[in-house]
Amino acid sequence: MASMNKQITLAARPVGFPKESDFKLVESPLPTPGPGQMLVRALYLSVDPYMRGRMSSAKSYAAPVELGGVMTGGVVGQVVESRHAQFAAGEIVEGMFGWQQYAASDGKGVRKVDPKLAPISTALGVLGMPGMTAYFGLLEIGKPQAGETVVVSGAAGAVGSLVGQIAKIVGCHVVGIAGTDEKVRYVVEVLRFDSAFNYHSTANYYRRLLELCPQGIDVYFDNVGGAITDAVVRLINVRARLVICGQISQYDLTRPETGPRWLWALIVKQARAEGFLVFQFADRFEEGLRQMARWLQEGKLKYRESVIEGIENAPRAFLGMLKGENIGKQLVKVADL
Amino acid sequence: MASMNKQITLAARPVGFPKESDFKLVESPLPTPGPGQMLVRALYLSVDPYMRGRMSSAKSYAAPVELGGVMTGGVVGQVVESRHAQFAAGEIVEGMFGWQQYAASDGKGVRKVDPKLAPISTALGVLGMPGMTAYFGLLEIGKPQAGETVVVSGAAGAVGSLVGQIAKIVGCHVVGIAGTDEKVRYVVEVLRFDSAFNYHSTANYYRRLLELCPQGIDVYFDNVGGAITDAVVRLINVRARLVICGQISQYDLTRPETGPRWLWALIVKQARAEGFLVFQFADRFEEGLRQMARWLQEGKLKYRESVIEGIENAPRAFLGMLKGENIGKQLVKVADL
Repeated sequence: MASMNKQITLAARPVGFPKESDFKLVESPLPTPGPGQMLVRALYLSVDPYMRGRMSSAKSYAAPVELGGVMTGGVVGQVVESRHAQFAAGEIVEGMFGWQQYAASDGKGVRKVDPKLAPISTALGVLGMPGMTAYFGLLEIGKPQAGETVVVSGAAGAVGSLVGQIAKIVGCHVVGIAGTDEKVRYVVEVLRFDSAFNYHSTANYYRRLLELCPQGIDVYFDNVGGAITDAVVRLINVRARLVICGQISQYDLTRPETGPRWLWALIVKQARAEGFLVFQFADRFEEGLRQMARWLQEGKLKYRESVIEGIENAPRAFLGMLKGENIGKQLVKVADL
Repeated sequence: MASMNKQITLAARPVGFPKESDFKLVESPLPTPGPGQMLVRALYLSVDPYMRGRMSSAKSYAAPVELGGVMTGGVVGQVVESRHAQFAAGEIVEGMFGWQQYAASDGKGVRKVDPKLAPISTALGVLGMPGMTAYFGLLEIGKPQAGETVVVSGAAGAVGSLVGQIAKIVGCHVVGIAGTDEKVRYVVEVLRFDSAFNYHSTANYYRRLLELCPQGIDVYFDNVGGAITDAVVRLINVRARLVICGQISQYDLTRPETGPRWLWALIVKQARAEGFLVFQFADRFEEGLRQMARWLQEGKLKYRESVIEGIENAPRAFLGMLKGENIGKQLVKVADL
């Protein structure tokens, strides 16, 4: 075991798109677990869009990371020392241990990961927070019915790739929107979406959606926001549901973007736009994880991981994810098991 | 009985704000009711914001009025001749008879009005479509709970004035937004809203709402849209409900207005914006009318009517309503009973 703990801290609050200098690699002594605590060694770190919000001082649903503080993040790790009654050394756990090699934890919000169920990294993806986001966001907020058309933006990302596959399991017509031709091929050829398009090479989103959604749009799972969402809204059906999960196109703006007002479309179509946070379904995660694991074992769900090695590369992994460089779940491999 | 039927037809599709010359007064022979039909003589005609949409050729939830066609509109009238099994001469009825003195009707969508229950004009207001819009929109879409804060735009209008009163019956803190000082006084002093403000004389809607809604906003009943709605969104609470009923600030624009994008706020607050049309509750109107009539009889609901006399003045009444000149329900008195 190392004697020092590499950590990534927040060095500056980003103005616009974050940069590597907004982060700082520091080394501090290994934490010592007190009574009722355990020491966890990070194996995989998750980087996710929500972290952009935590870098900002703006009021949100969770407190921002303090300047100089360790960046927030979900981690799969191994218990290396335990003074906690419910956790034993050697166990694999998942929790918000942050961007660092080692963390002392009192076990709050920590769950055990069964390495026999699936590769442990999936506890940060399909069998973790992104999986629960896709599962409950689509099924509980979107309420798709067989035969309906579901459109997903951020279709090749950790959440979007699962949303489209779950919609296919439900029996929907699924159209993905993604940012590269490779992603488009991936969601259509590997994940079996009915169709998809690359918004970077599409001049008129509305016209493309009109072609791909001849029956209109019943459910829209929005990870992106902005002009893509505006185009979707023009094609919604009566009683459509817009599931507002993320707005990644808007997170780095120094002032709010403006766009056409379209609330009138919600009236005309008796439609609904609803935002959610995965935590609101926390008391049903067990059910969600069980179902996702079953689909995974049945081969009905596929997933991909983009892995960058080394805690010192976490900022690069995070920035790449914000730019859409990854396909599937972006992870940082911190150490071997 | 007259031998000619005065009608108001659509002469031109408005560009921007409608004007009197978009309408035309014509006279045509009295219609003769065929088998299974009745002849109805109009007493009161309702003018409502939705009619602005019917003047436009843009696709909406209902077909536009044809150029040269009689304007659509709800009417309370008296059956003067009947060849319909369920309606007898002398009965008071309400239906979509249009902007004209006489209409032949097959009885579809026509209901009988009980003149002993309340003044018959209320069948176009508190005991009619605006009443059902307020009742079901607030209670079923907004789902207000006692102690919550409800904000209503268009607060002194036919719908908004009822929404605020129903919210008070539920036990909410109610804040109205209206366009004149007289309307503000009316909703506070007569209708007993907790507070209200005149958006025309308020420079910063957000700051004013912050003062009047110290506990944040749980339900917003939106008749207006635009910058007022933007300000409300900045103050919504977790799990807030935005009931999108009307967007009168947007109806006369020749191109869609732009505004700040705020879907991210729905995520952060796990909140919902939902549009509706009163017709989606049609199978529950009887329940709604019964409850509204009870509250009316108990003195818990007050209403006001602005009445203009003469079918030839219907365009003026309609344009005045769009400009917000009325308090409460705007009616055209077509004839005495």
